[in-house]
Amino acid sequence: MKIGKQSWIFNEKPVISAAATVAGPFEANGKLANEIDLFHKDLYMNQPTYEQAHQQLIEDATKLTVQKADLRFQDIDFFISGDLINQMTPTNFASRTHKIPFIGSFNACATSAGSLALAALMVNYKSANYVITGAASHNAAVEKQFRYPTEYGAQKPPTAQWTVTGAGFGLVSQTGTGPVVTRATIGRVIDLNQSDPFNMGAAMAPAAADTLKNHLKDHQLTLDHYDLIVTGDLGEIGRNLLIDILRKEQIYLKEEQLIDAGLSIYSQDQNVFSGGSGTGCSALYLYSQLYRKLSNKELNRILFIATGALLSPLSTLQNQSIPVIAHAVAIESEGV
Amino acid sequence: MKIGKQSWIFNEKPVISAAATVAGPFEANGKLANEIDLFHKDLYMNQPTYEQAHQQLIEDATKLTVQKADLRFQDIDFFISGDLINQMTPTNFASRTHKIPFIGSFNACATSAGSLALAALMVNYKSANYVITGAASHNAAVEKQFRYPTEYGAQKPPTAQWTVTGAGFGLVSQTGTGPVVTRATIGRVIDLNQSDPFNMGAAMAPAAADTLKNHLKDHQLTLDHYDLIVTGDLGEIGRNLLIDILRKEQIYLKEEQLIDAGLSIYSQDQNVFSGGSGTGCSALYLYSQLYRKLSNKELNRILFIATGALLSPLSTLQNQSIPVIAHAVAIESEGV
Repeated sequence: MKIGKQSWIFNEKPVISAAATVAGPFEANGKLANEIDLFHKDLYMNQPTYEQAHQQLIEDATKLTVQKADLRFQDIDFFISGDLINQMTPTNFASRTHKIPFIGSFNACATSAGSLALAALMVNYKSANYVITGAASHNAAVEKQFRYPTEYGAQKPPTAQWTVTGAGFGLVSQTGTGPVVTRATIGRVIDLNQSDPFNMGAAMAPAAADTLKNHLKDHQLTLDHYDLIVTGDLGEIGRNLLIDILRKEQIYLKEEQLIDAGLSIYSQDQNVFSGGSGTGCSALYLYSQLYRKLSNKELNRILFIATGALLSPLSTLQNQSIPVIAHAVAIESEGV
Repeated sequence: MKIGKQSWIFNEKPVISAAATVAGPFEANGKLANEIDLFHKDLYMNQPTYEQAHQQLIEDATKLTVQKADLRFQDIDFFISGDLINQMTPTNFASRTHKIPFIGSFNACATSAGSLALAALMVNYKSANYVITGAASHNAAVEKQFRYPTEYGAQKPPTAQWTVTGAGFGLVSQTGTGPVVTRATIGRVIDLNQSDPFNMGAAMAPAAADTLKNHLKDHQLTLDHYDLIVTGDLGEIGRNLLIDILRKEQIYLKEEQLIDAGLSIYSQDQNVFSGGSGTGCSALYLYSQLYRKLSNKELNRILFIATGALLSPLSTLQNQSIPVIAHAVAIESEGV
């Protein structure tokens, strides 16, 4: 049901009844080393190209998801996902492998949350029994396309972020046990005229603030409804900016109530500049540690806000600023 | 409600209560000259780049749509659309202009049908009052990215298609008058190992056949349920191939029951090789002539099947074949 201006409430409480995550070698040395199901030992993942390795991540994570649910691909009704590579070929080609009816969804790094909202909508209204949703990114494939091939060794400013090599997928279903999806807010596109593609966190923070503010308003909630607000990949700079923007709107988000996925994947000693990023960043964190903590009730209620920078290398060359978006999904541990 | 393996039935019959179309100078000399709302006199459309002209098409068509419905952008709940340009910047930037909460959707040239299915789903379950959906493409922006800048004058084989410069959008709503959306089938990704990007029609025909076959099976219908089957942009070659493939499956689609949008936009004397194509092709045709004929009951029931080739220039260079998809939406004139 629509609630407020741009939000949904899911009365049937669709269940995320299984989830799986797969990542690369660099992520294996990070904070989620014990939370991720499968690590590939090198960035090629036995594939001839980085784009096909990206596809491999999606295939592995979706396969693990159905296996954990004791299902097969043919039992799944719909697959909703997307990625940053031009025309989303890694996701398209993975869909050719598993053959699940496919709805391509793209809002850059907000794809994970937008797709989860759509999946919950379908399941809530019995328009699907099982939907697999999530997102992936691959450091070398994405960096090559958006910036420079990593082999060039181009220097980056400290505001830059590190594209995560990883995939996180979940199975949203009418039955089963697991965390439930209760609410969503679909974001609108914001643009505060930021145009530095090496400072995405600053560009994306206003979108996160806008969606969070509208989520609370639409659902008539206050911040204390949630144990945690989890942002996608604002990084250090964007995270601090989000707290500042909200304070100016008289919304007081406490430091300890806000976790950013981009700051939760890598260890302190891994030099990832301002933090992790990429479509896979928020999905990897959601469907690993957050999923575990919501399943075992270490967490009761979170608001997951994934943010996306809707630029392209070409729009940057054409001197356009960076439009941004954020979608929010509320997830609760079962029976809360 | 889900019906069969991969289909939906919309019992509340969401209404397409307004629609608008905008196109370029070449389309102004075609068959739809009297059906399209607005033509731009040149391909730049008063913009500095072709990509921004592409954005202009979307902005014009969405604005005309809300004007026809006597609404304003702020009355619209959600915008669902996407395009072929890398990271969908024309659609993203248009969303920044109208500020409607935005769900990016991408299945190449199947985007128009996939997005319409999602819009109908939302409206059917009162998860939206008003959704604007549709798609656009721009010949020079798309050709430059996928093939060569048109100024190079590269020769094309007769199997090639011509990217449509045009936008078609509709307003899907709970109330109002107009054609209604009654059914949908979400396609799966098919790949018969076709790898020639200059012969998309042949690549896409098997996806159209698969989705049509599954649509009839899921909804327990026969072909005669529909006045017309309308495909997106198979062109001459793909259209004939579709009839052949179906015949082998004992589904006898008559020549006169099948119309292809790609063959319905340009005149005989316009040299567009095998026909029109692009995300805007099927949308331009649906929201102009088909919308008019469904509104005035010249047509009672159509099945609109948009097909998408899920390749990228890079996947072609990497010697990958072309995965394809088709989504189908049934549209009926009101009160049928």
